[in-house]
Amino acid sequence: MAVRDGIRDRLADGSLDAGPSHPGPGVALVGAGPGDPELITVKGRRLLAAADVVVVDRLAPGLLLDELRPEVEVVDASKIPYGPGRAQEEINRILVSRAAEGRFVVRLKGGDPYVFGRGGEELLACVAAGVAVTVVSGVTSAVAVPAAAGIPVTHRGVAHEFVVVSGHLPPGHPASLVDWPALARLRGTLCVLMGLKSLPAIVEVLLAGGRPAQTPAAVIQEGTTGSQRVVRARLAELPDATAAAEIRSPAILVIGEVVEALV
Amino acid sequence: MAVRDGIRDRLADGSLDAGPSHPGPGVALVGAGPGDPELITVKGRRLLAAADVVVVDRLAPGLLLDELRPEVEVVDASKIPYGPGRAQEEINRILVSRAAEGRFVVRLKGGDPYVFGRGGEELLACVAAGVAVTVVSGVTSAVAVPAAAGIPVTHRGVAHEFVVVSGHLPPGHPASLVDWPALARLRGTLCVLMGLKSLPAIVEVLLAGGRPAQTPAAVIQEGTTGSQRVVRARLAELPDATAAAEIRSPAILVIGEVVEALV
Repeated sequence: MAVRDGIRDRLADGSLDAGPSHPGPGVALVGAGPGDPELITVKGRRLLAAADVVVVDRLAPGLLLDELRPEVEVVDASKIPYGPGRAQEEINRILVSRAAEGRFVVRLKGGDPYVFGRGGEELLACVAAGVAVTVVSGVTSAVAVPAAAGIPVTHRGVAHEFVVVSGHLPPGHPASLVDWPALARLRGTLCVLMGLKSLPAIVEVLLAGGRPAQTPAAVIQEGTTGSQRVVRARLAELPDATAAAEIRSPAILVIGEVVEALV
Repeated sequence: MAVRDGIRDRLADGSLDAGPSHPGPGVALVGAGPGDPELITVKGRRLLAAADVVVVDRLAPGLLLDELRPEVEVVDASKIPYGPGRAQEEINRILVSRAAEGRFVVRLKGGDPYVFGRGGEELLACVAAGVAVTVVSGVTSAVAVPAAAGIPVTHRGVAHEFVVVSGHLPPGHPASLVDWPALARLRGTLCVLMGLKSLPAIVEVLLAGGRPAQTPAAVIQEGTTGSQRVVRARLAELPDATAAAEIRSPAILVIGEVVEALV
């Protein structure tokens, strides 16, 4: 697709900032990063500035939309009036139909398009419809939100691995693909996205699976933004501490010795 | 630290592109992203443009250095003439000493500073020396390199978790903190960084631990750059296929059903 071409040449000849020409009809699935509007990539921001249509998630930083030209059509995907299953179908339909009209569409997603962002489904919908599509990776909240709270997901002598897992479905849910007891046996860092609602159940299954009750842990609400809030507690006490602090979504759980690596 | 202040205001009033004033003395640990120079963040690029000193890794995109003002001091950290342990000490010393001279230092790292980037150690060195320090998260290669090869690290109905692990130390090495047999029991996506040299041993321990021999897998060399090369094979055949293709570092291994999610 045209939007992927010529980047090196343009960087090398200094014209990257000169403003891109129109990328042509198609869809770019762009990761907007974790919340701080400056944590979008240079590429994502360039494509956003060239968009005719922007289909935006609740988690993408709203300030990025203030930069758009007034004639750009902005579709708020969180307000699509369908059920959970239908909403994604409708998003796919919007992406494909706008591109088929000859417009350049940016699908702006919080974090990274492939980290629980359903980017793969949207890409497949475009491919099936014969629409040009590209993916622009973003800074994932799973790494950047802990970092903003002073927590490195890996640290020499402390953790040489980290797991990123969706807590959207609670442990034991029939549609869940996550083997929580197996995760409980790991000693590395565990980053749980969308896990706030299931936090008590997640902690219970981790403790039952052998993760020590004294493991350092944290919950971070709206990380990397001006509204960031952080709660630290031992794993066994994390649900109570989180409830007491009235933490709200979006929030990320971090569990592991790294929580204390820099303090 | 001053470099973290006022971002929202500047974005909102449209002056983000007007060029920042000097951030003041200190150190910014900046993730340069996975290789494509356009996958650095807007924030990282802004701080890089303001740097008096840049201490750069082998894995950070060299093209980003072409944009620096001629008077900027560039230190190539990969050429520091010490052993593995001493080199990091020397890097820490350079960061602290330059900042103590009143200069603004950018430590430019491949990927993200906290994903096997030793960012935590550098941050602690700065804090211990009383030097102002900030961390700018980057796009991690663990997610973006598979994406550039058409592999989503998560995908609905296929994988709701991914593990990022360092293969720098081979399985069974006394200093390794990775429980490879426990990882073998997970059914999600496994992304191994720095694992090329130990690939046969890693595959052996995963197979012995119960990961099926037919699991789809891939090795990606220099992902997101113009030199990207991809080898796909079943897990059991990955070492031979990788050797036959003469894949070189830097390379990332991806193991799991997601390798076939979009093909």
